[in-house]
Amino acid sequence: MRNFLTHLECTACGQRHDADVLQTLCTSCGKVLYARYDLAAAAKAVSPADIGPRESTMWRYREVLPVRDGAFEVTLGEGGTPLLRAEQLGAALGCTELYIKDEGKNPTATFKARGMAAAVSRAKELGAERLVVPSAGNAAGAMAAYAARAGMPAFVFMPDTTPQSNILESRIAGADVELVAGHIGDAGRAARERAAVSPMFDMSTMKEPYRVEGKKTLGYEIAEALGWELPDVIVYPTGGGTGLLGMWKAFGEMEELGWIAAGRRPRMIAVQMVGCAPIVAAFHAGQESISPWENAETVAAGLRVPGPVADYLILQCLRESGGTALTVTDEEALAAVPEMAAAEGVFACPEGAATLAALRKLLATGEVDGSERVVLLNTGSGLKYLDVLG
Amino acid sequence: MRNFLTHLECTACGQRHDADVLQTLCTSCGKVLYARYDLAAAAKAVSPADIGPRESTMWRYREVLPVRDGAFEVTLGEGGTPLLRAEQLGAALGCTELYIKDEGKNPTATFKARGMAAAVSRAKELGAERLVVPSAGNAAGAMAAYAARAGMPAFVFMPDTTPQSNILESRIAGADVELVAGHIGDAGRAARERAAVSPMFDMSTMKEPYRVEGKKTLGYEIAEALGWELPDVIVYPTGGGTGLLGMWKAFGEMEELGWIAAGRRPRMIAVQMVGCAPIVAAFHAGQESISPWENAETVAAGLRVPGPVADYLILQCLRESGGTALTVTDEEALAAVPEMAAAEGVFACPEGAATLAALRKLLATGEVDGSERVVLLNTGSGLKYLDVLG
Repeated sequence: MRNFLTHLECTACGQRHDADVLQTLCTSCGKVLYARYDLAAAAKAVSPADIGPRESTMWRYREVLPVRDGAFEVTLGEGGTPLLRAEQLGAALGCTELYIKDEGKNPTATFKARGMAAAVSRAKELGAERLVVPSAGNAAGAMAAYAARAGMPAFVFMPDTTPQSNILESRIAGADVELVAGHIGDAGRAARERAAVSPMFDMSTMKEPYRVEGKKTLGYEIAEALGWELPDVIVYPTGGGTGLLGMWKAFGEMEELGWIAAGRRPRMIAVQMVGCAPIVAAFHAGQESISPWENAETVAAGLRVPGPVADYLILQCLRESGGTALTVTDEEALAAVPEMAAAEGVFACPEGAATLAALRKLLATGEVDGSERVVLLNTGSGLKYLDVLG
Repeated sequence: MRNFLTHLECTACGQRHDADVLQTLCTSCGKVLYARYDLAAAAKAVSPADIGPRESTMWRYREVLPVRDGAFEVTLGEGGTPLLRAEQLGAALGCTELYIKDEGKNPTATFKARGMAAAVSRAKELGAERLVVPSAGNAAGAMAAYAARAGMPAFVFMPDTTPQSNILESRIAGADVELVAGHIGDAGRAARERAAVSPMFDMSTMKEPYRVEGKKTLGYEIAEALGWELPDVIVYPTGGGTGLLGMWKAFGEMEELGWIAAGRRPRMIAVQMVGCAPIVAAFHAGQESISPWENAETVAAGLRVPGPVADYLILQCLRESGGTALTVTDEEALAAVPEMAAAEGVFACPEGAATLAALRKLLATGEVDGSERVVLLNTGSGLKYLDVLG
């Protein structure tokens, strides 16, 4: 398999790092590394027409994914999820061109599969032997599954309030599961303590540089599904923000590749929960980074991320795109689950349904116009939240 | 959209029925109707090469699906699920070419999505206004979702012992849910009583003629994934048997279309649970139909089908294919769930995992040889069974 990965680049200080050894954050400034590709060469080697007939997983975009040798591709069939036109829901909201990107149709039933497929594959290719991750829940389930598929031992650290589905799916896939009092930040500390004693590679999102590469395929897929055009607005439930940043990175790459017109990117809109909204607070305060949220509390477990590592990148993306950030309540998100399911047959997780609750507010304020092309990103299946939805 | 549907044909008496009005069982003999196509014309109109670049849902095979007008296609992105090579599991079992067809990656997280997508689409095209179905659980969830997507009221009748996930997903999608004491047969009686009072179209599998058409796309997909060849053995967890029969029907159609070589069909192997094994009993007794199973009891809810409507077709298929039928225990199926997950990252439902428990027995007896190409059909995600797996 041929790809065009050239190096890793720090998103803050710009320092260049070797992409062919295991890396985490920038060794100079501690900020997030992004994978960079020789896109001019990639554009000569592959075109949208070449991609059309390929397999319907995220690996159809392999030239801009980090795995160099296809033998290391650890796949359960991730990606290739539908971009569903939501006519009935759109009619109810007064939104003429509404879509739901349904990530519940991934292995492990959430979009975490994309990031973990890329990251586990690349970690294996670069010689990692044991993997560890702190998680609000779904990343743990995904890592456990991909590590199993790769034949690698997996260690996951989750808050003790994580949905049962995540704990069970991780254990069933053979992972060593530790429950930690507190939130994902506390789980992260516990993971680092363990890794200090017993070497294992840290797969924390945005600390590990390739989960965002898997997630960026969301952006490639949305563009491809719309005939290599982009929507006007993407409403995204923002915890760690990896999917949001991945899509934004994909849009930049596709512009450079010449696959989409430049300067037509969507407004990126971050939805958070009233009980944990560090990005919303920092965005409206005009800050370039967040203040960690105290006493984070929400039923949308994936959004209980009080201090996202890539806060500065998320805030940059929202501003560059002309987007915004807003909160919804637990009650609004939970009410939006049956609303979306009854209107379109999509049983979303509370995080995904929060985008519907948010869209209603955005239409009411005029921040989104009913004539715009809008994509709601449903990050996973409601089946993983039966304990809060039942 | 062009298709080649010509008529419905009774699988027992051969009588021809009009395919363009709503039909259930044969009006002459009460047996199952199959959709028939002008396959000679279809073979001229479309080839495997034409299908290659199409959308990665089951609708890529639209010429041999029953919906005549694409405007009636009710889709959530069903089908296009991965056929995963299971090397680690195969190595553990001594099975050199083992695959898992992972149907958990469907909308509503089971293979029922295929059948319901076809049947709800066709019912809508033919003017049905309200839909009813009795279900062991997953068919209810799928019908609720597709009826919601189609904008049609849905009524579902399930045993009161059905997994909570199915009850909840149906209600969340807006279906009218009634829980019935007993098994799926009792739910069927309750559904018929309601339909007698208040007209609604009965979507019971094999009584409604198009669910099997959706399920048959499993067979097309397996062949396509293997380069238009078939495996030697397919191990299938058998409740109503619609997927088994659908695949068998697909193999016949593909032979007629000239898409696969004739006379190379797999041995079809039916797995049932010790607590509900009417097909296994009838198969080994040399009978052509089953005796309804008394006091059916198993954790694999989808296999608690004491009297499948298409019993005679299932038994014919097993015999014609040179296959067999066998049972596993609840304990064996439940133990196979973490075994499959830890070996391959696939979190199967107990029904799907039962195929792994069965394969181990088949290899031990020599009924399957370790050098054969074997497909295990995992019918859905283990996430729907957290209450029995937790």
